[in-house]
Amino acid sequence: MKKLFHTPEGVRDIFAVECDKKRFLEKQIEKLFRSYGYQSIDTPVIEFLKVYDDHVGSTSVRNTFRFFDQDGETLVLRPDYTPSVARAAAMYFADEQMPLRFCYRGPVFTNSSTLHQGRLREMTQMGVEYLNDDSAEADAEILALVINLMKRCGLRDFQVTIGTVPFFEALVKEAGIEEEEKARLCELLLEQNRFGASSMIEHLNIRKDLKDIFLRLPSLFGDFSVLEEAERLAWNGEARSAVSRLKRIYELLHTYGCAQFVTFDFGMVSEFRYYTGIIFQAYTYGSGEPLIRGGRYDTLLKRFGKNAPAIGFMTRVDSLLTALERRHIEVPIADIKTMVLYPAELEKEAVLFAMEQREQGIDAACIRFEKGKSIEEYKEYGRRNQFGGILYFDSKDHGCAIDLLTDTVSDLSISL
Amino acid sequence: MKKLFHTPEGVRDIFAVECDKKRFLEKQIEKLFRSYGYQSIDTPVIEFLKVYDDHVGSTSVRNTFRFFDQDGETLVLRPDYTPSVARAAAMYFADEQMPLRFCYRGPVFTNSSTLHQGRLREMTQMGVEYLNDDSAEADAEILALVINLMKRCGLRDFQVTIGTVPFFEALVKEAGIEEEEKARLCELLLEQNRFGASSMIEHLNIRKDLKDIFLRLPSLFGDFSVLEEAERLAWNGEARSAVSRLKRIYELLHTYGCAQFVTFDFGMVSEFRYYTGIIFQAYTYGSGEPLIRGGRYDTLLKRFGKNAPAIGFMTRVDSLLTALERRHIEVPIADIKTMVLYPAELEKEAVLFAMEQREQGIDAACIRFEKGKSIEEYKEYGRRNQFGGILYFDSKDHGCAIDLLTDTVSDLSISL
Repeated sequence: MKKLFHTPEGVRDIFAVECDKKRFLEKQIEKLFRSYGYQSIDTPVIEFLKVYDDHVGSTSVRNTFRFFDQDGETLVLRPDYTPSVARAAAMYFADEQMPLRFCYRGPVFTNSSTLHQGRLREMTQMGVEYLNDDSAEADAEILALVINLMKRCGLRDFQVTIGTVPFFEALVKEAGIEEEEKARLCELLLEQNRFGASSMIEHLNIRKDLKDIFLRLPSLFGDFSVLEEAERLAWNGEARSAVSRLKRIYELLHTYGCAQFVTFDFGMVSEFRYYTGIIFQAYTYGSGEPLIRGGRYDTLLKRFGKNAPAIGFMTRVDSLLTALERRHIEVPIADIKTMVLYPAELEKEAVLFAMEQREQGIDAACIRFEKGKSIEEYKEYGRRNQFGGILYFDSKDHGCAIDLLTDTVSDLSISL
Repeated sequence: MKKLFHTPEGVRDIFAVECDKKRFLEKQIEKLFRSYGYQSIDTPVIEFLKVYDDHVGSTSVRNTFRFFDQDGETLVLRPDYTPSVARAAAMYFADEQMPLRFCYRGPVFTNSSTLHQGRLREMTQMGVEYLNDDSAEADAEILALVINLMKRCGLRDFQVTIGTVPFFEALVKEAGIEEEEKARLCELLLEQNRFGASSMIEHLNIRKDLKDIFLRLPSLFGDFSVLEEAERLAWNGEARSAVSRLKRIYELLHTYGCAQFVTFDFGMVSEFRYYTGIIFQAYTYGSGEPLIRGGRYDTLLKRFGKNAPAIGFMTRVDSLLTALERRHIEVPIADIKTMVLYPAELEKEAVLFAMEQREQGIDAACIRFEKGKSIEEYKEYGRRNQFGGILYFDSKDHGCAIDLLTDTVSDLSISL
């Protein structure tokens, strides 16, 4: 009779304490987003593939779950939220010119053929999108939100690395590098293949001074002093303005009390081709993958019919949980339930007592005491099912409170 | 440039007030489930089709979204939670003999070819499953939870209709009706085609007294008196025990203060073939479809390797929202945000002020006052984006609080 059914590869069940921790994090993050005035939006899991197509550049179409609708149009399981929210905002907020702040939470799907490092095909993504504001102030708010999210999760040792797409783009333009070569260079930088990138740059037929800047990109990494170095290197107005934007953001992050968490990285590129301004990633020690990714995308919404600048970021709750576990950071799960244990003849009293408890905000489950079982067995059961304590009815007007954590038993009278 | 992308048919975006209402309902329902001691479980959206296959009888395979994994196994977008939770419980709680209570929340998918009455292909389902307890007490707890869920949503005019699978099955067995005929009869009863059902029964070659009982089934509908009538009709021990189970449940619902919401219906059948005990549906006036469906399924878990009785129910948050709207019941959305409106030169002060507000639990969004715009424009903007009020900084130590709902403006000093 033991015929166990497993979940498909790359997806999983979450239950018991782990599920409570996940819910707790989700609630904390949602509260944080809402505290900055972000409004909740739900987009569907099923979208037209064209929302995500390769021109959008958010995800490789190869790595999506796809199927057809009745009309033969290709549908996709949402691989990412940003294009979805952009699509929805373009439709429902077409005429809104003033700032729009959205936040979301839900499953995203990746159909990658190889699943290394325990990566999942289905994850819970949360994030924000801030539209209609192309200012450095908007950039700074988003970065402050990233840093506060990390803090809210209980993380202390973390870093947010900020890169700049316009600086790199200006350099590519000035050097007259072809689209194809640029794509190859980006790939090398993305893989952090410094040797490969250097050797490719060496062989490019471009101006010597620009070649030198290209070669220095990966080492333009660090604190505020990096911005000063980049400023000295800046060869034209575009490059200078990319750097001064970062300086302004850094200044604003001081107001937010967040500047100490920030590192600059001029060698950073993103796999998401829709980014047009700053890009950033948040890391904690011991997790190779970034916990948060984001950036400014000022042209994506145009594709959906709305000419609006935007910036946003996303995190995956599953990865946050793993990171917290690795760093031995406790998620403070507050709600613990009471077991109202009763002999069959006191059922009515137990039900009424549990109802009273619930009205007072205490979670309470009624459990009928089965003859032949011992209190010890119920204690064990309570411990393995996240009960905080047992209230054992042994007579109509008397009960024993049993603390599962300390094994203490204390008598108490219950007024029924 | 106006190139709007729509969502695929049968799925939709939810945003602004509607999304807040949905989140509010979700939170209330989750709190209610947890208050009865139910633990949260997350199963994946993607499951093997065999978890739901036609023997399980939860959903017609035809009406699912299906695709293949790399090994050629058929995957499905979860059409329903019950078989998923049963699968997971059989694996992770294989040896647990004592009561297990689970609750869940997430999207479910139906790929029906016809979408009438604005039905959706993707909905948010919430529900509970109560395992390892085959008692009438468990049935009553589940029904009390159904009734409290309806109340928690603000519904007052509603009814929970309870049917019994064992009474019907005993009748079918006693009459010696073939599986195929039974299926046809169930279909007619499911469609509430009383004429069709009667005419079919008339033509069945079965005992006259049993035929009479079959014919009376659809009218065995109403309050407690129906149970007494059914008891008089009961032809053997099985039938009597099905009725006395309902009587016991009714008695228990009195303890819960829930008996007045209950109606019995001996003509009720379910499209879910895994039910083995009571089945039930909750209705409110004006919504044709039931808002909650559930029942006892004592044999489903065996399929997944665990011999355990179980009972559960589910609701779809989207349908609850629609029902509330039709009944003009307000969902009390509590959290309203403040707009911290500032001229560029007071940016730092505004950011710090907003941070202070957030620490006090107030949601606050910073909005830079653009020269050339009027306060009136920001008021309008605030009204259409769920702001509760504006705090307008006009000088370093002074602000105006503007109430968006009443148009009142009051001066106030801000200590920075």
